[in-house]
Amino acid sequence: MSTEQVSMAPMAESIKQNASHPLCPVTASEIKRSAELIKNLYPSKTKFQFKAITLEEPEKAQLVPYLEAEHKGAKLPKIDRKIFVSYYLRNTDKFHEAIVNLSRDRVESNIRLGANIHGPGDWEEILLIEKIALEDEGVKAEIAKLGLPEGTAIVSDPWIYGSDGVDDDRRMYQCFLYMRDPNDPANLDSNHYAFPLAISPVVDCVESKVVRIDLCPTGAGFETKPSQPLSIPPPNEYSADHQKLRTDLKPLNVVQPEGASFKVTQSGETGQVIEWQKWSFRVGFNQREGMVLYDVRYAGRSLFYRLALSDMNIPYADPRPPFHKKAAFDLGDAGAGTMANNLKLGCDCLGSIHYLNAVLSTDEGDVQPMDNVVCVHEQDAGIGWKHTNYRTGIAGIVRSRELVVQSIITVANYEYIMAFMFNQAGEVTYEVRATGIISTQPIDEGVEVPWGTIVHPGVLATHHQHIFSLRVDPAIDGHANSLAYDEVHPIPISEFNPHGMGYTVTETTVQKSAGLDTDYNTNRTYKIQNNFSRNPVNGKPVAYKIHAPAFQKMVADPSSFHHKRAEFADHNIYVTKYHGDELFAGGKYTNQSRGGAGVRAWADRKENVVDDDIVVWVQFGLQHVVRIEDFPVMPCEIIKVSFKPMNFFDKNPALDVPPSNQDFNRSTEVTKKHMQPSVEAKVGECCGPTSSKL
Amino acid sequence: MSTEQVSMAPMAESIKQNASHPLCPVTASEIKRSAELIKNLYPSKTKFQFKAITLEEPEKAQLVPYLEAEHKGAKLPKIDRKIFVSYYLRNTDKFHEAIVNLSRDRVESNIRLGANIHGPGDWEEILLIEKIALEDEGVKAEIAKLGLPEGTAIVSDPWIYGSDGVDDDRRMYQCFLYMRDPNDPANLDSNHYAFPLAISPVVDCVESKVVRIDLCPTGAGFETKPSQPLSIPPPNEYSADHQKLRTDLKPLNVVQPEGASFKVTQSGETGQVIEWQKWSFRVGFNQREGMVLYDVRYAGRSLFYRLALSDMNIPYADPRPPFHKKAAFDLGDAGAGTMANNLKLGCDCLGSIHYLNAVLSTDEGDVQPMDNVVCVHEQDAGIGWKHTNYRTGIAGIVRSRELVVQSIITVANYEYIMAFMFNQAGEVTYEVRATGIISTQPIDEGVEVPWGTIVHPGVLATHHQHIFSLRVDPAIDGHANSLAYDEVHPIPISEFNPHGMGYTVTETTVQKSAGLDTDYNTNRTYKIQNNFSRNPVNGKPVAYKIHAPAFQKMVADPSSFHHKRAEFADHNIYVTKYHGDELFAGGKYTNQSRGGAGVRAWADRKENVVDDDIVVWVQFGLQHVVRIEDFPVMPCEIIKVSFKPMNFFDKNPALDVPPSNQDFNRSTEVTKKHMQPSVEAKVGECCGPTSSKL
Repeated sequence: MSTEQVSMAPMAESIKQNASHPLCPVTASEIKRSAELIKNLYPSKTKFQFKAITLEEPEKAQLVPYLEAEHKGAKLPKIDRKIFVSYYLRNTDKFHEAIVNLSRDRVESNIRLGANIHGPGDWEEILLIEKIALEDEGVKAEIAKLGLPEGTAIVSDPWIYGSDGVDDDRRMYQCFLYMRDPNDPANLDSNHYAFPLAISPVVDCVESKVVRIDLCPTGAGFETKPSQPLSIPPPNEYSADHQKLRTDLKPLNVVQPEGASFKVTQSGETGQVIEWQKWSFRVGFNQREGMVLYDVRYAGRSLFYRLALSDMNIPYADPRPPFHKKAAFDLGDAGAGTMANNLKLGCDCLGSIHYLNAVLSTDEGDVQPMDNVVCVHEQDAGIGWKHTNYRTGIAGIVRSRELVVQSIITVANYEYIMAFMFNQAGEVTYEVRATGIISTQPIDEGVEVPWGTIVHPGVLATHHQHIFSLRVDPAIDGHANSLAYDEVHPIPISEFNPHGMGYTVTETTVQKSAGLDTDYNTNRTYKIQNNFSRNPVNGKPVAYKIHAPAFQKMVADPSSFHHKRAEFADHNIYVTKYHGDELFAGGKYTNQSRGGAGVRAWADRKENVVDDDIVVWVQFGLQHVVRIEDFPVMPCEIIKVSFKPMNFFDKNPALDVPPSNQDFNRSTEVTKKHMQPSVEAKVGECCGPTSSKL
Repeated sequence: MSTEQVSMAPMAESIKQNASHPLCPVTASEIKRSAELIKNLYPSKTKFQFKAITLEEPEKAQLVPYLEAEHKGAKLPKIDRKIFVSYYLRNTDKFHEAIVNLSRDRVESNIRLGANIHGPGDWEEILLIEKIALEDEGVKAEIAKLGLPEGTAIVSDPWIYGSDGVDDDRRMYQCFLYMRDPNDPANLDSNHYAFPLAISPVVDCVESKVVRIDLCPTGAGFETKPSQPLSIPPPNEYSADHQKLRTDLKPLNVVQPEGASFKVTQSGETGQVIEWQKWSFRVGFNQREGMVLYDVRYAGRSLFYRLALSDMNIPYADPRPPFHKKAAFDLGDAGAGTMANNLKLGCDCLGSIHYLNAVLSTDEGDVQPMDNVVCVHEQDAGIGWKHTNYRTGIAGIVRSRELVVQSIITVANYEYIMAFMFNQAGEVTYEVRATGIISTQPIDEGVEVPWGTIVHPGVLATHHQHIFSLRVDPAIDGHANSLAYDEVHPIPISEFNPHGMGYTVTETTVQKSAGLDTDYNTNRTYKIQNNFSRNPVNGKPVAYKIHAPAFQKMVADPSSFHHKRAEFADHNIYVTKYHGDELFAGGKYTNQSRGGAGVRAWADRKENVVDDDIVVWVQFGLQHVVRIEDFPVMPCEIIKVSFKPMNFFDKNPALDVPPSNQDFNRSTEVTKKHMQPSVEAKVGECCGPTSSKL
């Protein structure tokens, strides 16, 4: 099992260029045909609002043998191609989900979902809701009371309504209104979050009209004030043309003269297999999760069957209506696929970049091309390992190279930059960068509240949590895995520990599906292991351990809707027995959800999770106590969750990385006047000519 | 106070190129003269063993006015130049410390220190101890019993003796023996940690001889076995020439065509002032701490008076003698300056690099040049902030550039890579990468112990902790600072929180010096603030908050020597009132220390720390439960501690960073065959030609 012995050959050979695969994302023609087949079930005049037309992944019972055959280069079993479709009959509350079998060209199932199950938003709907709110006569009349300058542009941000149990069975949107800088009406990119208004229309999705206009509290208490003429605060713009930019930043280019080290093999129209530094995996993309990784292997050994962000929840702290309902599930309510950026347009990476495209469905059941939604590139991650033998002065050193598979989503005001990162030491890291613009609301001059920070005159940014759930479907050397944790405990003072300093590590295997927590006082560390695959040197079960940063779990009371709905937000780790239809920690439909359909409910089944097909849900997050520095756009807050081999290999797997040296790095020593161009070191010289020492 | 308004001018102007400064590290001539002045106190034949000849920093009472005058460009007060000297009268236990006043060319004070105060190791001493152990007849006789092949090289790693209260008043070393690969005797870089021996000589430093030969337990219990012929396990080498290296990693170069963005101003022989992206600070270097930063400012505003790693402690888990004494203080026992790598020889960085040199003293009171002990370079840190206006599709994005000030130390088997990192959002991060070779000991075949992991046949790597203490001497907009913490608490369910989801942030100011802990359940976050300097927009005190990762604190029992000695290891944070002579959290002299002379003792004075000159000690660390992947050399474990502005600025300070665009980044899109050279995108095009899309 030494890293040297295993080659990439089995994978490389088995992948047929452009051969389609059961895990390839839905194609354009598949979207169109699936929509047709659904439409054919109804009278021709029927209007539809499609929410998702996406790959229905095969059951593991079918796919696992397929993957094994694929990696062995054996004959591949036949698997029917199935597509998942969810849709409304337009302008009704009739929400359906269907399975279309394209191999048999028929609808396999089509059911109407029950009460309090609501589909997510979609782009066309969100734009429509904006329009409905802004064109409503009542809303216009309310805005008129603000006495704004002629030509002031009002902006409406539709928010998923949320749940509080108060007359909220209908599918609705809560719109928050802002204005663009009244003194700069031509500036379409004016940061309207610096001008929040206290008027909040509620739009009913079936009737497509405003059914209520909420006024927002702007003082310290629950009371609201009638709309009245506003005094206009100064703007607070983030766009470059409104800044006096720094002039002393020199270019820093990442150059890969021989190209990138990774290989991408196209699989069908939409599939991509990536191979890099002994790693191999498939990249998928769908409306709900965006980027998904399948069949992740290192040196041909299976590690993960499926990796994807499952959902996130962002509950806000302000207890006052209408703000008390703010608790977004950005994946379940909107979709990481739907909201994905075209990365080419963002100039988001350095070095040699490869972009992946995808297609999603529109509300009409048409094809929405999604170009450059995932980017792949390498980056240098600093020193990988180093040791100097002080007796000879000889340094052994390698740099750490990472492969980054990244996607970025914009959810109205906010951005998430999400990336899987692979390194040469057999480690996988999932990184989230939280950036964008914090959600704002109006506040009266001179008022302070303990649940938010004033970030601009008249502008309150409410504290909030970001709680993420990463779904890990492991296959550590196979599918019979267990979740265990190590704890460090002192040895009692005794003749076996006379000096009171000794300690031991104890391992505990989790027996039944459950929600679990970390304990920093015992260094409790969770690991996914395979008890049937043992380390050849020390006989320990091969494992991958999980490193996730500490965070404050859901603050809201267990009796609250926030707590009931975010079923993953109360524990660091959930472990469940695998069930094919359980992909989303907060439940399949989070929009105005009531709870009871997510990972907490599944864990409560108390199923066996020892030496079994298990799923591990890793929670992480941020308690965002807002600083003024987070406005008008916040510097990235970075969270990393890592999976590291633990007795999986027989030594440091990065031992065979070529040494770091100047011949390879081509670094330069800056000359005495640092603001002048550098001189490149001669090849072979180590980190620059010694002559130019200060 | 907006970031735009303040310029670097005051700093830049005030620094006189090559003007010496009270904070300049000791110079070569100062080392020589100080040694002379000490030697002149004694009869001419007296032999000395110098431990440190280093800058005695001026009292704040003198230096603060000096710095203020410097930044104002006003006339500078005169400050006497003082040097701290510690030394032994050679081959005695007579340990002294002295203050030499070079402005007056005289020894100001010279005292002999009392019992149980021992100086650190030094290079010459360590090499001497190795020799003494290996040339001892008793040790040779013991080794002979192992029946090793002719010409097998034995290696001795001298360890600081440690303390257990058992006949340990004398200054001693505990040597651990290894051998180089007996089948490859010519290989001077053979990893001897793969061949640990059970023989451990103890050397007395005064008598310079072996006073005891310990045998190490190699079973599951405390018992030891007489030395007997060994069966030789296979080697486990880390050096590149023993690996089958990967061949598919393409070069990745960091190119800065216009040079680096930072400016280094030489100050005297040994001083360096670095200015970069509104940051300015002085870099110092000394025997004990290595790299030190002084007078850290952003846009001319004072942030930190002094920043340096104060000490670290690495206690091991094995309760059996002689291993139970293993608890290294790598700074106090050896010195981060003394052990610093010459970075040029390590090829440790990418891009445009600037190296700093230093001088230290030898045991003879001579000059030890330390070239390239600190390197300075910039790195790209990914996306700094991003927002896309989904209504216009316009993306605002900047990349985050970091300035890295790095030093690397080798402490026998182990390496620490330490760096201060500055970014454009006003954040300072201290990063430690732990790498190198884990400390090993022999273990019998078939035996397992709960305090370590078998990493190679016959080789046990014992679990251990790394607990670091970063000393932060803050000056947030001035020297009257306070330590406070924010906590997040739910609002009780009431008419003020009817839906049970509301929460508030409460601030608590620490009143008296103390050891303090974090609480992740309330998101307790510490911040250093200035109550006399208020944010112009929201009126909050300006502050910098502290982000440090969770870690398990000292496991050893409070009654143990490990716990008593590592005075910082039991709390996440210590805060003390400033005292000029309190720089080292574990005490000034950690070698065989007894405790009671470090930060725990200082905090127990319960002094006022509100609106006062305070020092904050930030602890962080690793519980290293060893994996086989950590051998023969471990992949870096990375820990980051960050200091982030909190209502210190009036908006995101990185707002004025020039936008990320292809004209600046010069990224390339990889062509369809990814293993082929990339084509560079045309300037102006965004992230590569769209033509080469897959």
